Amino acid sequence: MQGIFITMEGPDGAGKSTQIDMLKEFLEEKGYDVLITRDPGGNEISEAIRGVILNKEYTKMGHMTELLLYAAARAQLVKENIMPALMSGKAVIADRFVDSSAVYQGIGRGLGVDTVYKVNEFALQGIMPDMTFLMDLDAKVGIARKKNQAELDRMESETLEFHEKVVEGYRLLAEQNKDRIVKIDASLPILDIHDIIIKHVKEKL
Amino acid sequence: MQGIFITMEGPDGAGKSTQIDMLKEFLEEKGYDVLITRDPGGNEISEAIRGVILNKEYTKMGHMTELLLYAAARAQLVKENIMPALMSGKAVIADRFVDSSAVYQGIGRGLGVDTVYKVNEFALQGIMPDMTFLMDLDAKVGIARKKNQAELDRMESETLEFHEKVVEGYRLLAEQNKDRIVKIDASLPILDIHDIIIKHVKEKL
Repeated sequence: MQGIFITMEGPDGAGKSTQIDMLKEFLEEKGYDVLITRDPGGNEISEAIRGVILNKEYTKMGHMTELLLYAAARAQLVKENIMPALMSGKAVIADRFVDSSAVYQGIGRGLGVDTVYKVNEFALQGIMPDMTFLMDLDAKVGIARKKNQAELDRMESETLEFHEKVVEGYRLLAEQNKDRIVKIDASLPILDIHDIIIKHVKEKL
Repeated sequence: MQGIFITMEGPDGAGKSTQIDMLKEFLEEKGYDVLITRDPGGNEISEAIRGVILNKEYTKMGHMTELLLYAAARAQLVKENIMPALMSGKAVIADRFVDSSAVYQGIGRGLGVDTVYKVNEFALQGIMPDMTFLMDLDAKVGIARKKNQAELDRMESETLEFHEKVVEGYRLLAEQNKDRIVKIDASLPILDIHDIIIKHVKEKL
């Protein structure tokens, strides 16, 4: 069985985790051994880096520091988890990946999408998702959902204007990568979204 | 008064800290406001990143992760400390800087010096040292000195072979950057080394 790498993208509160769990069940029924992971994170070192990135106290963090920290966490995730899983034929589903850096640091922070991909080239070691699902949701709705769930981290605490740039960035990215990114209206019922996702995954398998 | 940026390089145990303290006194006598800092580190965020990099538990850390973490810590140090200090006319003395990445990650880890500078370009924002002093010491001697001082961190715990590559890397780098890097025999008496350093600094001021 050949490995497959699927990423879930979208603003906070768009329902990525729920869809990841449902997609995992579907892939397991298809016979896959499934690794669910998150970026930044997924192993001890990347989770430690995540702790630095999202620490609400670190208000002085520079945009370039932030970009490089995400790339560092991702480099470790690729090397320690994603690459070995794909090599052994697993299905990997990641909650966020390099597209998040493209929109959050590249567009939200204004570093430019090109700069983000140049830095991340060192982290990715040639690994890119086979498919990406973008859970598309207006920034206001996402933040409102998130605020009800838990205390916001350093990124989630950003201004509405920042989150609106992120959502616009995602839409642009999806437009430019139609072969890889499937944009889905995240305000649809959970089961409808799941159906759209598995329809696309079936085509890919 | 125009700012000046001086870095101190060399293997662990070569006596960088002692020379930094003595150079600081000299520069203060010359009327400089002096900032001493260390890389990785020098501010809350970069020190947190340093904590991740040097954690002895993190034996699984990939070389690329390590390189990106050093670059992230350096980006923050440049933005938060070095750049503002130089802009206000201070003298900055840093215990290690980008040359350390060139030799430890580029040569010691084998990632290549070119890759190191490409990644660090994003961190440096055009800032390079005006002068660099390389405290040149055989790897064995440096490690022996360090072992007597304190428990070794993740980098210091590396093999002798690694540290020998680092020392050779430093010598090569100094050879290739004669206009900026002054190589000094670190086995000389402390005061003799200090005299060599201030002779070169006087020429630069």
